[in-house]
Amino acid sequence: MLRINEHYLKLQASYLFSDIAKRVAAFQTAHPEREVIKLGIGDVTNPLPPACIAAFHKAVDEMATTAGFRGYGPEQGYDFLRQAIAVNDFQARGADIQADEVFVSDGAKCDTGNIQELFALDATIAIPDPVYPVYLDTNVMAGRTGMFKDGRYEGIVYLESTKANNFVPDLPKEPVDLIYLCFPNNPTGSTITKEQLKVWVDFARETKALILFDAAYEAFIRDSQLPHSIFEIEGAREVAIEFRSYSKSAGFTGTRCAYTVVPKECRAFDAHGNKQAIHPLWNRRHCTKFNGVSYPVQRAAEAVYSPEGKAQCTALIDGYLNNAKIIGQAMSELGYTYVGGDNAPYVWIEGGRDSWEFFDLLLNKAGVVCTPGAGFGKCGQGYIRLSAFNSEANVVKAMERIKEALQ
Amino acid sequence: MLRINEHYLKLQASYLFSDIAKRVAAFQTAHPEREVIKLGIGDVTNPLPPACIAAFHKAVDEMATTAGFRGYGPEQGYDFLRQAIAVNDFQARGADIQADEVFVSDGAKCDTGNIQELFALDATIAIPDPVYPVYLDTNVMAGRTGMFKDGRYEGIVYLESTKANNFVPDLPKEPVDLIYLCFPNNPTGSTITKEQLKVWVDFARETKALILFDAAYEAFIRDSQLPHSIFEIEGAREVAIEFRSYSKSAGFTGTRCAYTVVPKECRAFDAHGNKQAIHPLWNRRHCTKFNGVSYPVQRAAEAVYSPEGKAQCTALIDGYLNNAKIIGQAMSELGYTYVGGDNAPYVWIEGGRDSWEFFDLLLNKAGVVCTPGAGFGKCGQGYIRLSAFNSEANVVKAMERIKEALQ
Repeated sequence: MLRINEHYLKLQASYLFSDIAKRVAAFQTAHPEREVIKLGIGDVTNPLPPACIAAFHKAVDEMATTAGFRGYGPEQGYDFLRQAIAVNDFQARGADIQADEVFVSDGAKCDTGNIQELFALDATIAIPDPVYPVYLDTNVMAGRTGMFKDGRYEGIVYLESTKANNFVPDLPKEPVDLIYLCFPNNPTGSTITKEQLKVWVDFARETKALILFDAAYEAFIRDSQLPHSIFEIEGAREVAIEFRSYSKSAGFTGTRCAYTVVPKECRAFDAHGNKQAIHPLWNRRHCTKFNGVSYPVQRAAEAVYSPEGKAQCTALIDGYLNNAKIIGQAMSELGYTYVGGDNAPYVWIEGGRDSWEFFDLLLNKAGVVCTPGAGFGKCGQGYIRLSAFNSEANVVKAMERIKEALQ
Repeated sequence: MLRINEHYLKLQASYLFSDIAKRVAAFQTAHPEREVIKLGIGDVTNPLPPACIAAFHKAVDEMATTAGFRGYGPEQGYDFLRQAIAVNDFQARGADIQADEVFVSDGAKCDTGNIQELFALDATIAIPDPVYPVYLDTNVMAGRTGMFKDGRYEGIVYLESTKANNFVPDLPKEPVDLIYLCFPNNPTGSTITKEQLKVWVDFARETKALILFDAAYEAFIRDSQLPHSIFEIEGAREVAIEFRSYSKSAGFTGTRCAYTVVPKECRAFDAHGNKQAIHPLWNRRHCTKFNGVSYPVQRAAEAVYSPEGKAQCTALIDGYLNNAKIIGQAMSELGYTYVGGDNAPYVWIEGGRDSWEFFDLLLNKAGVVCTPGAGFGKCGQGYIRLSAFNSEANVVKAMERIKEALQ
């Protein structure tokens, strides 16, 4: 008799964004005449940069000829892309990362979800609260937690990110093995300084822990003092893995390309306490359970690093950051306090009421979709996230409607 | 102290195709003047069908406009593709499969590797020998086996596919929970009849087991009596999951699109022995650890089902099947016996010697790359696999060289 993985039954209801989609669909069915503006899910709205489109077409044309056709590529990604990443995203910032430490994939969601497979099932996991739900859910599925009780899973060390610590969590008081961090943060939009990040790197070195650093939003950083990569921090190569994505930096949410950096020195330990390099383990997983990213998509991603591609991506992000500013100003004028929006596409707003209640209010009164903070964890209760991913015209209109609804 | 998943350390050396690539690279370095013909890895060589190229370009163009741009799609795949699959690949053959039972993904390797996550860690796994290594390796990584000893992992029930059973394994004598089957088979090219497959379906129903049916090569079936899908068999909806891929049927190895079918009735059991539907579990996994296939790639896959696309794919496969015939004839003339090649792109040849020895002989004497049967399991020892994935000219040349080398 085949038994299921019972840990799946511990998972709470359905995934946050599916819940939101259902409420929005119900609203639209009830009010077909109302136009809804979506500032909820962190999905980009602008077209792909022209440089990416041109490279994409060119690669599709190659696939139409015998000479240019590409079958299976290297599971880790083509060297042209891995090189471009190492040089532009790391070496240009003084971070010592080589091309063969970069693993190209079809999404940071997949990578941040799959990485936990490399580690022992009894590892103690530290996860920020609030945070992107994938870190938590994938550890629940793997069986690293107990049951869900009072809004939290037993066995997880929650790193609380609150107003009191300016949304950068303090070091945990108990021993932990695997630490998820995400900066610029999803959902709060908060950032971490080099000095603060150094504290975490030193902690991981001292305690033989490992940091999984999600930098999917680094392209939004405009403050030149903030680190874009954890590998800008001394000592991080041994204790950190970093996740990046083209989803938000170049509008690839529907095109699918991302990458993960595992330095050669990065280590965990075996049962005898001996160091084990993580690079060969992730390489093995990648080669066994993955078959590489679509060739034309990799060419489109490579174009992000061309001079035109760089300029176009900067313009794209500047547009979204301008939207974030409009959101922040409007909410300030309404008397709400918020963080984020200056080096991130998200504005995290203290709503002064239950966050699903605030969600329903904005949906029903203003026809605007936000993300209720409670969906990201207990500490998100009372907050909502507004996303800058929309056209400026829609953001302006949404803010006018919100002002009208809330005043 | 973060410990690794120690099961990774049980994995044998590196992945078969990486081993082959290394030997070929060493040969090419030593003999830069020799042209190598690759009939080893099952990778297609012909360009994408024109219908797919046209649809691919059109979708890339959509991504360049605000109106046509697509961000995150449904994780399960766009409805246009799921519908086309259900209608063309199943309903047209009398198999009752609906669009919402189809999960589009970026590869059958990923899906056949990931599916085991849904099941209990102490499930007993039955895996054919010889077989595609991913089924075995992913269960090793998950911890469902003991150590590797005398060429096999402890705890796995191997389903031996030999000359004696015409490369269709007999039912296991011991109880098993999860059964991997692959027809047309990789690597042997053997096929299974409806009557034979019915025996497995009935067995799974009686013993509360589940069949994971890998039909990645179904497009090569030319014998109208053979089943293309396990869902052509009565009773299969409750006890089978099927994997399909555009890799071989439409040349998508470098483009990346595949799908998995999980019928709503398909079940496993919980700790209390109650039925649990697998569909919502796979859906949850897909939504949590995957973000959908690239939109332009899904449009390219959809074009496979257009009248032009169907004709072009048939022509593509006819070409490969003609190559397989050439291979079979040549090997027969040399006095070798083989199976496969008539409803599959692989010819499985009894070499009368160690299979890596035969591999080295063909590489060094003929400059032809095959796949050593031993790489697919103990029962593959003494065999090699020749793949029909190359141009007809290259296949003819390879066979001439092999004749010269072996005569």
